[in-house]
Amino acid sequence: MALRTPYLMFIGDAADQLAAKTAQGVVHWRPEWCLGQLRLEGCNADLGIADMTLEEAAEAGVKTLIVGVANRGGIISQAWTNTLVRAMELGMDIASGLHNKLGDLPDVRAAAELHSRALYDVRHPTRAFPIGSGKPRSGNRLLAVGTDCSLGKMYTTLALWREMETRGMNVDFRATGQTGIFIAGDGVSVDAVVADFISGAIEEISPANDADHWDMIEGQGSLFHPSFAGVSLGLLHGAQANALVMCHEPGRQIMRGVLHHAPPSIEDCIQLNETAARLTAPEAKVIALAFNTSKMNDSEAEACMKDHADKFGMPCVDPVRTGVGDIVDILQ
Amino acid sequence: MALRTPYLMFIGDAADQLAAKTAQGVVHWRPEWCLGQLRLEGCNADLGIADMTLEEAAEAGVKTLIVGVANRGGIISQAWTNTLVRAMELGMDIASGLHNKLGDLPDVRAAAELHSRALYDVRHPTRAFPIGSGKPRSGNRLLAVGTDCSLGKMYTTLALWREMETRGMNVDFRATGQTGIFIAGDGVSVDAVVADFISGAIEEISPANDADHWDMIEGQGSLFHPSFAGVSLGLLHGAQANALVMCHEPGRQIMRGVLHHAPPSIEDCIQLNETAARLTAPEAKVIALAFNTSKMNDSEAEACMKDHADKFGMPCVDPVRTGVGDIVDILQ
Repeated sequence: MALRTPYLMFIGDAADQLAAKTAQGVVHWRPEWCLGQLRLEGCNADLGIADMTLEEAAEAGVKTLIVGVANRGGIISQAWTNTLVRAMELGMDIASGLHNKLGDLPDVRAAAELHSRALYDVRHPTRAFPIGSGKPRSGNRLLAVGTDCSLGKMYTTLALWREMETRGMNVDFRATGQTGIFIAGDGVSVDAVVADFISGAIEEISPANDADHWDMIEGQGSLFHPSFAGVSLGLLHGAQANALVMCHEPGRQIMRGVLHHAPPSIEDCIQLNETAARLTAPEAKVIALAFNTSKMNDSEAEACMKDHADKFGMPCVDPVRTGVGDIVDILQ
Repeated sequence: MALRTPYLMFIGDAADQLAAKTAQGVVHWRPEWCLGQLRLEGCNADLGIADMTLEEAAEAGVKTLIVGVANRGGIISQAWTNTLVRAMELGMDIASGLHNKLGDLPDVRAAAELHSRALYDVRHPTRAFPIGSGKPRSGNRLLAVGTDCSLGKMYTTLALWREMETRGMNVDFRATGQTGIFIAGDGVSVDAVVADFISGAIEEISPANDADHWDMIEGQGSLFHPSFAGVSLGLLHGAQANALVMCHEPGRQIMRGVLHHAPPSIEDCIQLNETAARLTAPEAKVIALAFNTSKMNDSEAEACMKDHADKFGMPCVDPVRTGVGDIVDILQ
């Protein structure tokens, strides 16, 4: 795949800031790639970067327009279509994180063909992946796992990648979801892969590498999530990670999106992840805890992290509050 | 889905008996649905049922032609296409277990539209499935799990279903692979479902049921298989099975299709399956062992099964050699 950079961030008529969450994540982690934002009338979000017309973006050298917004009611309006078509006329590719496929819009598909531009629906893998082999491969890999969905696995791996780059280490971020793909410029939406190819897709995006190289692999779901655990297990086997970081939100009572299921204990979650991971990575070990303490005040968060670090005998950080330096110290 | 019965079994120009393995399985378990076989010139397989022309099959009341054969080199010849088109002219639907899709053959698709006939590619799910909910549901479910792929999980569940029917119990077989789908007339090729929907697909095909009802759910893969464990875990969570049967082939050294991986011990495999299953079915328990002892002689097999039954304190059967009566005794 490999998206061409830099980007123009299109957030359409986003109803609120939350609707532009994907675009915001890309701007946060790749400010150097995000030359500007394009907002239509009625847009209530702001990415905090320069507003640009399509013409200004083309002039500035933008190569890809990123549709980084949840559209209202799943309908793509004519105003959007016109924007996408004009961007292609001006030489840009289009990459979208929408559920709807760009190629299903006749005007958009026609313009892509006419101008030989690429359409990337990052939620919908188009590459054919091999079946996972389980074959040992060189290099080092770290995977973020978790007690639940949506508690900071992507943020944790990105923070690690950034910190390791800053320290001059040999590292890549490997994306397994839509926002991560825009940030990495490549990757796979692993939850949209055909079930037989989950582990094979992950083997493919984090290939054998130098002995001092690290892949920071974005995790998905949880082995304890009744909807998505299959994705998490295939990802764990494909990642062949020697290091795991356990992500957790203290105080969460119910697992995201389901009834009746409390999150597992950290102990149980560490044990099951290590057991399963060792099928393909015999040395796999949880080396740190990464907490999302956004609902706590400073002193509560500090006490909570200290307690858990003592109890588990490993660093316990909040990537937002404390950074991830303590984890990178171990990897170094 | 629900295929219309009875069937005509089309085995084309099968190179050998193995190429017609799918068709053979259907004839074995559903002889009453398989009115005849249709073989083309050069066919080296024989299902042991009456040869029939398409016209004879139509006359006999056949509703669906089953393509139950692996085609040579992945190419569908013109002779096949002519057969499929003529079958639709005569009023039959077509159901195929091929990797290639029927609808990708222009003549076949055109004939299906012209005659309003259905094309079923059972390896390629077309239904949209919900995301798994993990919500408890009524009725009883048994799932066959295993130390590896291809060691008798489908056969075991079919043998249980047949024995329970014979005893007048309230039971259904739930298919998760192509051969099973032809035998059940319905089901899902779970390994071809999009990863996010594995457990949801299984919840859908084995819905809530009467308190005395049993679903015998065909298992796939193994939690210890580095290529396919994600499928197996999603299946396990979706099945919400109160009873598990552990399938195993004594003496197998290497897991199917991979290098470097020996099968797990039965103990480890029971423990991990029970732990994982209890996420959605708190009472889940391995209640019996089902061995494939086809490479042993009678006395070896008998000794092996007795040893394991004693060691694990549960029945140990070979569905082919001994039947599954000992397991059904427990379910009753």
